[in-house]
Amino acid sequence: MRHIKPEPLTAAAFRPFGDLIEASDAVRHFPINYGNTERYHDLAAIDTGAEGGRTGVSIFRSTPLEGPIVVRLMEYHPLSSQAFVPLSPNPYLVVVAPKGGFDAGAVRVFRAEAGQGVNYHPGTWHHFSLALGAVSDFLVIDRIGEGSNCVEHNLEPADQITVVL
Amino acid sequence: MRHIKPEPLTAAAFRPFGDLIEASDAVRHFPINYGNTERYHDLAAIDTGAEGGRTGVSIFRSTPLEGPIVVRLMEYHPLSSQAFVPLSPNPYLVVVAPKGGFDAGAVRVFRAEAGQGVNYHPGTWHHFSLALGAVSDFLVIDRIGEGSNCVEHNLEPADQITVVL
Repeated sequence: MRHIKPEPLTAAAFRPFGDLIEASDAVRHFPINYGNTERYHDLAAIDTGAEGGRTGVSIFRSTPLEGPIVVRLMEYHPLSSQAFVPLSPNPYLVVVAPKGGFDAGAVRVFRAEAGQGVNYHPGTWHHFSLALGAVSDFLVIDRIGEGSNCVEHNLEPADQITVVL
Repeated sequence: MRHIKPEPLTAAAFRPFGDLIEASDAVRHFPINYGNTERYHDLAAIDTGAEGGRTGVSIFRSTPLEGPIVVRLMEYHPLSSQAFVPLSPNPYLVVVAPKGGFDAGAVRVFRAEAGQGVNYHPGTWHHFSLALGAVSDFLVIDRIGEGSNCVEHNLEPADQITVVL
């Protein structure tokens, strides 16, 4: 069992795993609607079309796990990206590992703040939704369609990770 | 000039114009993530592929108009749907008219509450983003691609609508 303290979520740190969805001066943005709106443009590579899939929009309502949070299980979606954008004013955890064969030593734990969404690229290992503090809603953009699109991996006890909050 | 008081936004009232994106018991939902998350499933018909388009995810940061709010201009997107999901805890206005030739008498004005998103179906006339109360962020799912995808209509002065808040 390892212990990991979450690191801050930044676009640069998250780039190997997917896209940070955030209204930041670091992304391309420009005024629209006669100056009444600033558009932070094209923040995520949505990829849902494999094997006849289509883009679906859903809301996930997630209850925080009973603490301490232990990473015992990871998953990935071979056929699609999956985006999570928080609709509640609460932070949440983002636990990822690089695509390919699962490498327990390469797991990263990020703390996402309210206002920060993520888009996992196809194949990126991630934990399921980990709300913090209160029941939280997330807008989820993922693939809806036939075919097997979720692979799970149970971590060996020695590889499991306790998140230090 | 007409005056319209916004009506509440419900899925039934909005159906002629698009989808209501809301975690409601009225939509299909089911537990996932070993019971820690409830998935409110497949809430919007995303349609962005016309003429080589793809699904884009952006954030709109909208400043409320100086009051009173007058509907002078409507628009529609012939090639795609466009979804708005509020990321801020503020209500906003949704002003729509049926697709086809613009009919000023058929304009509807809805008040969306925090937690209620909308997805305009292709061709639905709508006003641009109308935040209320404070600068507000919206997650927007629309088409990114070449081609002319915005048609605007300026309302005649007699057809303009003052929104009574």
